[in-house]
Amino acid sequence: MNGFDAYRDLEAHFKKLNTIGDALSVLHWDASVMMPAGGSQARGDQLATLRGISHELLTDPKVGDLIGAAESAALDPWQAANLHEIRRSYRRASAVPQHLVEALSKTTSACEHVWRTAKQEADFAKVAPLLQEVLDLTREEGAILGDALGLQAYDALIDTYEPGASASAIAAIFEDYAAFLPGFLGEVLEKQKQAGPKTVPQGPFAVDRQEALARRLAETVGFDFSSGRMDVSAHPFSTGYAGDRRITVSYNVDDPILALMAALHETGHALYEQNLPAEWTGQPVGRARGMAIHESQSLLIEMQACRTPEFVSFLAPLFREAYGQQEAFEEANLLRIYHWVEPGFIRVMADEVTYPAHVILRFRLEQALLSGDLPLNDLPGAWNEGMEGLLGITPPNDRLGCLQDIHWYAGSFGYFPTYTLGAMTAAQLFRAATKAEPDILPGLASGDFSSLRAWLKDNVHGLGSSVSSDEIVTHATGHSLDPKAFEAHLRQRYLPH
Amino acid sequence: MNGFDAYRDLEAHFKKLNTIGDALSVLHWDASVMMPAGGSQARGDQLATLRGISHELLTDPKVGDLIGAAESAALDPWQAANLHEIRRSYRRASAVPQHLVEALSKTTSACEHVWRTAKQEADFAKVAPLLQEVLDLTREEGAILGDALGLQAYDALIDTYEPGASASAIAAIFEDYAAFLPGFLGEVLEKQKQAGPKTVPQGPFAVDRQEALARRLAETVGFDFSSGRMDVSAHPFSTGYAGDRRITVSYNVDDPILALMAALHETGHALYEQNLPAEWTGQPVGRARGMAIHESQSLLIEMQACRTPEFVSFLAPLFREAYGQQEAFEEANLLRIYHWVEPGFIRVMADEVTYPAHVILRFRLEQALLSGDLPLNDLPGAWNEGMEGLLGITPPNDRLGCLQDIHWYAGSFGYFPTYTLGAMTAAQLFRAATKAEPDILPGLASGDFSSLRAWLKDNVHGLGSSVSSDEIVTHATGHSLDPKAFEAHLRQRYLPH
Repeated sequence: MNGFDAYRDLEAHFKKLNTIGDALSVLHWDASVMMPAGGSQARGDQLATLRGISHELLTDPKVGDLIGAAESAALDPWQAANLHEIRRSYRRASAVPQHLVEALSKTTSACEHVWRTAKQEADFAKVAPLLQEVLDLTREEGAILGDALGLQAYDALIDTYEPGASASAIAAIFEDYAAFLPGFLGEVLEKQKQAGPKTVPQGPFAVDRQEALARRLAETVGFDFSSGRMDVSAHPFSTGYAGDRRITVSYNVDDPILALMAALHETGHALYEQNLPAEWTGQPVGRARGMAIHESQSLLIEMQACRTPEFVSFLAPLFREAYGQQEAFEEANLLRIYHWVEPGFIRVMADEVTYPAHVILRFRLEQALLSGDLPLNDLPGAWNEGMEGLLGITPPNDRLGCLQDIHWYAGSFGYFPTYTLGAMTAAQLFRAATKAEPDILPGLASGDFSSLRAWLKDNVHGLGSSVSSDEIVTHATGHSLDPKAFEAHLRQRYLPH
Repeated sequence: MNGFDAYRDLEAHFKKLNTIGDALSVLHWDASVMMPAGGSQARGDQLATLRGISHELLTDPKVGDLIGAAESAALDPWQAANLHEIRRSYRRASAVPQHLVEALSKTTSACEHVWRTAKQEADFAKVAPLLQEVLDLTREEGAILGDALGLQAYDALIDTYEPGASASAIAAIFEDYAAFLPGFLGEVLEKQKQAGPKTVPQGPFAVDRQEALARRLAETVGFDFSSGRMDVSAHPFSTGYAGDRRITVSYNVDDPILALMAALHETGHALYEQNLPAEWTGQPVGRARGMAIHESQSLLIEMQACRTPEFVSFLAPLFREAYGQQEAFEEANLLRIYHWVEPGFIRVMADEVTYPAHVILRFRLEQALLSGDLPLNDLPGAWNEGMEGLLGITPPNDRLGCLQDIHWYAGSFGYFPTYTLGAMTAAQLFRAATKAEPDILPGLASGDFSSLRAWLKDNVHGLGSSVSSDEIVTHATGHSLDPKAFEAHLRQRYLPH
């Protein structure tokens, strides 16, 4: 077969796979947002059946043959990048034997189920045996993937979420931050203490008003409701497919700020997806790059753009319009709320200064667990020691400690680092964007995100997976990801002269 | 291969097919209820891809081999009935060549699209060429299916919707009604005229109140919201899968009665699905029988049970509670509204007396179109003549005539008869039920549907597809479907002594 014909066949095959993936995203969204309790068992069958069909199609030996034949085709750079992504997907999927795929699926599902109770009861021992099984299977998976991809086992797991990242590069970045944090945090907390307490909004805040404001702000940022929806679910997320992006938010009547920031976070994710290169829709190269870049886009909106004094000056009157004239919604106080720093036990509630400490802890521990240096039974103790070392606080129980996150119990090892890589990437990108386009910051003060969107589309969104994460960052900012850029952002925001 | 093993393999294969069908139903529901406009093209790809996978799995030659092997297995009656349904599905699907399936899909999709404009503009000529293509392809499909199933071509098309029905049996039933109708209708209209006009409810009626009442009544009838949902769509429908049945309703602020009756209609459909034999979920024998029985279940709730004086005595106070003390919501007037008879042009707005005339017209015309006796260009004229003959009225344009229904334009020939077979079956079943269980009617007066539900579960719902439609009716009522039962119901309701 002619090399180019083989490439075209691969495009058609991966278009089909992508379409099944799109259908799966609708089924997932529905399960979280719409489905009555009675549907869960059959929905599980639907997801498993479509995933099984997808896996069969992806690992069909004919795909390997086509990839071999397509190597000789004369491809343009996007086609070549597409073939690269196709090869990566095929290699990863066909490396792991079916029995291991099934064992992982079954065990993580059981473990996740038991984890819910164990977390509620703060009883790590209850879930430890299943987590040990998940860990053993994940270790096996990492070794097999590593062999197939020529990577260390843990790097092969990281590659699942953030292709091209490595534990050694991440460790260098994280250790830099771990060294920076204690002194910086001390100074920030001291300064904050001197400034006195922030004023907390007095609720209740009706959900329909919160929702109206969340919609208005998502639209302000650039979310296109003719190609998307915003709904309610237990935990905020974003999903969807080309032409139909969906954001979910969870409202709390006592706190109008949490849901709004979550909505802006998910809008950042959705904006990335809505601006991927349209001509490559359905192809691997047309997808979002990795989880770190994805998280950088949500955090660039939520943490960078929407916590600037400029945007808060736009936001404060909207709060007062929606909820009345409270002192809490004065610009200065809102800024204090948005820039409040306070070490705590829970990662998802953490401010941007202490958040990386939560991730660094998990990054260290998951490596130790996988290598066997840390026996699973010692995890709770190691967790608490690590928290004490990084943030100077010790969780009173495992619910506030090593049971808080679903990731490991659901089999996701190598995922945590992407949160902080994303936060750091966001800071570096936002600094470069505002330098390159001086009207971005003034624009935010009037709710005008058009310059920022244009820059993001040119430098990130429109590139899809045509280049690596490192190339995206380097091309957009002039250098590779550097923790100093994030640290400079924090200094400027929290300790300005 | 051992015959029983072959049968078990078929069960597994059809479970998988059913699961893909379940996923398709969620995607369809979402497209009608949730999806933003931007998603329609990709959603079309999702549906087509899953349908294609489903068709490949269904027509896999290995299925034919397994069916052959399973013939020799010792099966219990349900398993034997399941094998019968499996054989029927396989034969039907594998009879039609792939190129015809694709041509039909493409042509009906184009025709349906043009029909929307043609209907709006009352311009039959605009869609006639495409309808001619649909008709030619359908004729070909009917011939091929007929050969494979040993049926006449039109019977093979009817079999798509109502297995076991035949044009000759339907014609006998319909002609009986066509003979009964003119005299009966004249008497009813005369009597109605003498009684004077009904009082019409004065709106507007807030949608949230209408929805609350629709939910309450669906629950009253027996809809289980822990295994189902009720939402809004342009046209009411019901869909879903085991454990997750979904009803949609369309509200009109000027008319609180239409939406409510539509909700009760869809509840009747959903109730059938919710009470199918749970131990056969996912197997062909566990599915609802045919469209006629399905329609009988929606009409048994909407037209039979919920228009009895007993139920209306329960309903009237709820209307007044929801919308205030209007004369229109007095019991006697509500009954007049529910029993109002008025010949009109539009099938979906027709009362139960004149509705069969609409169906009989289409039944006659679609046979004449398929046989070639009626050239397509003569359809509008033949339609109008038919309406004049059956109901004494002539549509002023084709929007109110042969362009009103989507069915033919979407390639559904043989579907229309099931509406009236369903209405007649409903009357016959309801009469048998109320005779067998004397507490059914008194129960309705207090909103207690438990006896009716129990009877329906025993006599219809719980049987799935284990027996034929005719066997269901005969076993439940003592004789085959007989138009006289429906006519007796109408006499009793509209011309009581």
